[in-house]
Amino acid sequence: MTTAGSRLDPWVDAYAARANAMRASEIRALFAVASRPEVVSLAGGMPYVQALPVDMLTSTAERLLKERGPVALQYGSGQGDVTLREQILDVIGEVGVTAHPDDIVVTTGSQMALDLVTRVFCDPGDVVIVEAPSYVGALGVFKAFECEVIHVAMDDEGLVPQALSEALERCEREGKTVKLIYTIPSFHNPAGVTQGPERRAQILSIAQSAGVLLLEDDPYGLLGFEGEPPRAIRADDAEGVVYLGSFSKTIASGLRVGWAVAPHGVREKLVLAAEAAILCPSNYAQLTVSEYLATQPWREQIKTFREVYRERRDALLESLQALMPEGTTWTIPAGGFYSWLTLPEGLDATAMLPRAVANLVAYVPGTGFYVDGQGRQNMRLSYCYPEPDRIREGVRRLAAVIEEELELVQTFGTTHALNPVTGSSVPSPDLA
Amino acid sequence: MTTAGSRLDPWVDAYAARANAMRASEIRALFAVASRPEVVSLAGGMPYVQALPVDMLTSTAERLLKERGPVALQYGSGQGDVTLREQILDVIGEVGVTAHPDDIVVTTGSQMALDLVTRVFCDPGDVVIVEAPSYVGALGVFKAFECEVIHVAMDDEGLVPQALSEALERCEREGKTVKLIYTIPSFHNPAGVTQGPERRAQILSIAQSAGVLLLEDDPYGLLGFEGEPPRAIRADDAEGVVYLGSFSKTIASGLRVGWAVAPHGVREKLVLAAEAAILCPSNYAQLTVSEYLATQPWREQIKTFREVYRERRDALLESLQALMPEGTTWTIPAGGFYSWLTLPEGLDATAMLPRAVANLVAYVPGTGFYVDGQGRQNMRLSYCYPEPDRIREGVRRLAAVIEEELELVQTFGTTHALNPVTGSSVPSPDLA
Repeated sequence: MTTAGSRLDPWVDAYAARANAMRASEIRALFAVASRPEVVSLAGGMPYVQALPVDMLTSTAERLLKERGPVALQYGSGQGDVTLREQILDVIGEVGVTAHPDDIVVTTGSQMALDLVTRVFCDPGDVVIVEAPSYVGALGVFKAFECEVIHVAMDDEGLVPQALSEALERCEREGKTVKLIYTIPSFHNPAGVTQGPERRAQILSIAQSAGVLLLEDDPYGLLGFEGEPPRAIRADDAEGVVYLGSFSKTIASGLRVGWAVAPHGVREKLVLAAEAAILCPSNYAQLTVSEYLATQPWREQIKTFREVYRERRDALLESLQALMPEGTTWTIPAGGFYSWLTLPEGLDATAMLPRAVANLVAYVPGTGFYVDGQGRQNMRLSYCYPEPDRIREGVRRLAAVIEEELELVQTFGTTHALNPVTGSSVPSPDLA
Repeated sequence: MTTAGSRLDPWVDAYAARANAMRASEIRALFAVASRPEVVSLAGGMPYVQALPVDMLTSTAERLLKERGPVALQYGSGQGDVTLREQILDVIGEVGVTAHPDDIVVTTGSQMALDLVTRVFCDPGDVVIVEAPSYVGALGVFKAFECEVIHVAMDDEGLVPQALSEALERCEREGKTVKLIYTIPSFHNPAGVTQGPERRAQILSIAQSAGVLLLEDDPYGLLGFEGEPPRAIRADDAEGVVYLGSFSKTIASGLRVGWAVAPHGVREKLVLAAEAAILCPSNYAQLTVSEYLATQPWREQIKTFREVYRERRDALLESLQALMPEGTTWTIPAGGFYSWLTLPEGLDATAMLPRAVANLVAYVPGTGFYVDGQGRQNMRLSYCYPEPDRIREGVRRLAAVIEEELELVQTFGTTHALNPVTGSSVPSPDLA
């Protein structure tokens, strides 16, 4: 796909080796079609920012500019605004994390924190262990820094400890250097599963024994539908875990304010890397968040988000239950944005996507969440953005497409294999 | 300086090779002192955002949230908002650049564009040619990606073509791969000099002959004090130049909105690298800029900034002329934020800094703008932020310190060499 462009590019021989790992998603063109209003998109991971009261934000911005305009409009510290870092302590307190404001680095979304951790730790060829499947944006970063990415199996409670131990032992035997174990313990993207407390303890213990840093990504931790937010792994180990958080899903993704909580030495490196990357995060965005947290009922607003997403999750699960043909299975998310669907034997979610889009429904094929071609029988369904009725309509359309595919398989023993569409190696914001 | 911290850091052996090049500036602690209000800081490169009318910005933010709140608060495209990219065409039109909106990548400040270009082009050991001295933030990026940085001499018209040719030939002979020629043609940071049209043509021609990409950094291009803004080098070659621009100095640095204009193939790589780095730039900041450009007299505001900075430059130059001891020289900036001062023979700006700060005046020692220890006799003086009277007072204090140093040299043949303070290898926002 890139060949035509490359032939015309006079700089094609000048790029760094790492640039070869940067490839455009070949399903990107399809998603341009999928963003048309008549298509029900169960693909994107866009938070439903419409649930935020705009008046409240307007008055926040107004007050900020009037009272602290010269600070909001000026360069700030590379580590991030100190008042905001103190407020972040309240937010991560909700998942049991205690820290000092100095332990926190504010970033342009937690994607940037992923990028910084990887650039600080990973030489080309270093191993990063990730879940199978894993967040497409993290895979993009690890590949951009030329890491070897190794997937480890999950079950209904997430990352399987036994499989993690085996992967670490295999790397040890093969003389590979494992730098990071990357996990999303709560309301996993894309798998929609959550590690229980015992599972978390086992995973932490394995990482500690192996002396490998645990990279805990927790953008959805406060968006659980039942009971208290799950306790973060970082709450039980301040030295062995880097914890990533974000305001993208609890306030608004357009602000691009996320953070890392890191052990002292790591944090120092992250700040230096951040200064090289962007000098400093936006004071304007940071102080907007800070002002919002200081003056608005942010915990209440998170409750509102939870209610919105729970209703949508219910709409998705009920429709799947009612409409999906036998042999189709899916995970039951207890929070977050996603369910992970497995098609009946013989069907291919990647090959099916163009037909789904033609039927006015979109999803993300499972292959995008692996680096090794797994996931053809899977898809990620997002319920975060469309209204419940649209979700029901989307599932109806999707079920019809799957039924047709099944008929083809039963009649011809195969589906019409279209030109296979492979997964993305870099994150597209559409798929975030 | 990092040894004490490193000994306690359990992850010290786990960092990537590139992390070794990330070092904290040892003058950072001194700058914490220098930020006290009684110190006149001629060190920082902070734009005087107080010259922006706050009411105008408040109404901009208000209108944006009311009319386009759900877009401003949502994820956007990795390449940046398309309307803003169209508006950027107007801005770069002022320096003669014509392009298509697709040629533009919006970034979290132009620092991020520097980072992206480097990550896309530079393998460890690749050569980047820079001016002597060069922007500390660029040096930090090149070192973070393990480039070999080679300084090339400047004169009163900036980068010397003959010296550039010789450096390229030397690299060729030594089998080195030169990936980038990095230049700030207009109102150089820190040198305060500007390339004339003929000089620009010569430099472009040398880069073209060598087949090396020219990286043109132009944050100050619209802040000239006389006549039209200098025509960008990119205006005369769309294929061989990547042009970096920023709203940090023409609107506000706290927004962190910059951009790169790049040839087609390069731009594709930059977008992929940007998506891995941050998913997408902040829609909130981008649409604030876009709304401002669409509704406010931004060209008039730039004129206001120019007047502010011209008055301050005049205050600096007049005081230097009146007060500096013989043997001290400095450049005469025709725009931008900085003058580059050379001390009388035998004086050391790095060693002198603690005494200057004790005398309540701060500057950036020249060594920070080189990777190779040059610049001990130099300092960067910024006139962008302090009011003219404060600048005059700062120069008075600085002249007194230099006089004292000269007396010491004349009496003892040397200054009291304090523990030498070395320059920064990563940018600190204080020094931006």
